Amino acid sequence: MQKVEEHWVCGGLQQVWRHDSHTLNCAMQFAVFVPPQASQAPCPVLYWLSGLTCNEQNFITKAGAQRYAAEHGVVLVAPDTSPRGEGVADDAAWDLGQGAGFYLNATESPWKPHYQMYDYVLNELHALVLASFPVVDKRSVSGHSMGGHGALVLALRNPHAFCSVSAFAPIVAPTQVPWGEKAFSAYLGEDRAAWQQYDAVALINSGHRVKDLLVDQGLGDNFYEEQLKTGLLKTACEQQNLPHTIRLQGGYDHSYYFIATFVGEHIAWHAKHLCQ
Amino acid sequence: MQKVEEHWVCGGLQQVWRHDSHTLNCAMQFAVFVPPQASQAPCPVLYWLSGLTCNEQNFITKAGAQRYAAEHGVVLVAPDTSPRGEGVADDAAWDLGQGAGFYLNATESPWKPHYQMYDYVLNELHALVLASFPVVDKRSVSGHSMGGHGALVLALRNPHAFCSVSAFAPIVAPTQVPWGEKAFSAYLGEDRAAWQQYDAVALINSGHRVKDLLVDQGLGDNFYEEQLKTGLLKTACEQQNLPHTIRLQGGYDHSYYFIATFVGEHIAWHAKHLCQ
Repeated sequence: MQKVEEHWVCGGLQQVWRHDSHTLNCAMQFAVFVPPQASQAPCPVLYWLSGLTCNEQNFITKAGAQRYAAEHGVVLVAPDTSPRGEGVADDAAWDLGQGAGFYLNATESPWKPHYQMYDYVLNELHALVLASFPVVDKRSVSGHSMGGHGALVLALRNPHAFCSVSAFAPIVAPTQVPWGEKAFSAYLGEDRAAWQQYDAVALINSGHRVKDLLVDQGLGDNFYEEQLKTGLLKTACEQQNLPHTIRLQGGYDHSYYFIATFVGEHIAWHAKHLCQ
Repeated sequence: MQKVEEHWVCGGLQQVWRHDSHTLNCAMQFAVFVPPQASQAPCPVLYWLSGLTCNEQNFITKAGAQRYAAEHGVVLVAPDTSPRGEGVADDAAWDLGQGAGFYLNATESPWKPHYQMYDYVLNELHALVLASFPVVDKRSVSGHSMGGHGALVLALRNPHAFCSVSAFAPIVAPTQVPWGEKAFSAYLGEDRAAWQQYDAVALINSGHRVKDLLVDQGLGDNFYEEQLKTGLLKTACEQQNLPHTIRLQGGYDHSYYFIATFVGEHIAWHAKHLCQ
């Protein structure tokens, strides 16, 4: 594992690391913010999953999350959004292939050899983080858009692995919207039964649960009605009596300005669960 | 004047505007953050001057300043760092020409027709801001690196125009360092007497004053010793009995991570002066 970047920020260290992933069969970068508290005692971890077209840089340069992580003593880990590199399958579109891994395990050609982001984030990356940084084995997960989908799916399928889950403008029902239909068709094939394990609304409706969830959705978000469909998550939570805080934020769009506005509240919320 | 971008952030609006500048003889973009308080009453203005290679985007996407401006009721205005466009003189180097205007009025060919950033920021942009946004005619100025130089020079030469000045890792004595010598030779010619009006340390040593100044400088900054030379500013302030708070911050580098760490303290400091 090789350190690619290191910057002091808010009393802690923002780092970027590169390693050879055996799950994804390629070199991967991920970002880690180590808060000042970690020099005294190991800290819990919040994973951040970014959205389409992003890599590990967007969250660490634009969200301003380090300040809150430093307040609460939380390590932030932000992986890339897909496998990368010349030998890795790709597509000319920005919503498929590199930068668009959808946090699933692909079963179809040509994606299967590298596109295993679900296993990577859940298992390989977490094991690496536990072995390499001053952390305790307590983790939560959050994310944006495609990464909000990833966060919800990971937590719903592994409720004992994650202390809490939140999301910004998540794709709550990818099996019902164009982004998800396109990606799942490519990565998982045409059998829609196989898609359900990566759809937060479908998981909730089939009985998967988390203790609580926090979602913020901007009402000025151009993707809200066609791709994100927050209302489907609210309905599923209500029908399944799943505790939820789903907030519709007037005016806010799909950008990191929206994330920067509310990330402090999300980190405080995760810190409360992580430090119980 | 044309609105290019608008995003809700921290309860206010982050906008980017485009206009035809008669001072620079080209189209220019600048960013404005309008805090929530401005819907009740006009607010004072903090100008942010960015460093080499930047445009109006760097500060608004990476510094996380909007949160503090929204706390204190301060409008933030971030201009570009130089004139831009096909008809504007340029250089292949990143420290001369477009992206490197050095906040001065060029007197030499081929720079003179467009490179008039000192007048642009001091006069044209401020008049436009006063005419177009919910602001009162009270302003302060801050900036980073080349922009820290610009902020110090503007305030030292116009102490009644600016309520306060601060800087992050400023080029405090451009006439004594490679970046400044290269740029000033090109823009102002070889007569070094003409350079002194754009050199903060020279201005202080010749009797220019501000009420107070705040400077943060990272000790992990690769440009500290060769280009920035914060010690020269400290010495000049001490010799001229100019009140100053110059802080050397262990570990921090030249990046926006450094700015993001301390920008809240700078905005609080400006707000105190702007709201007196």
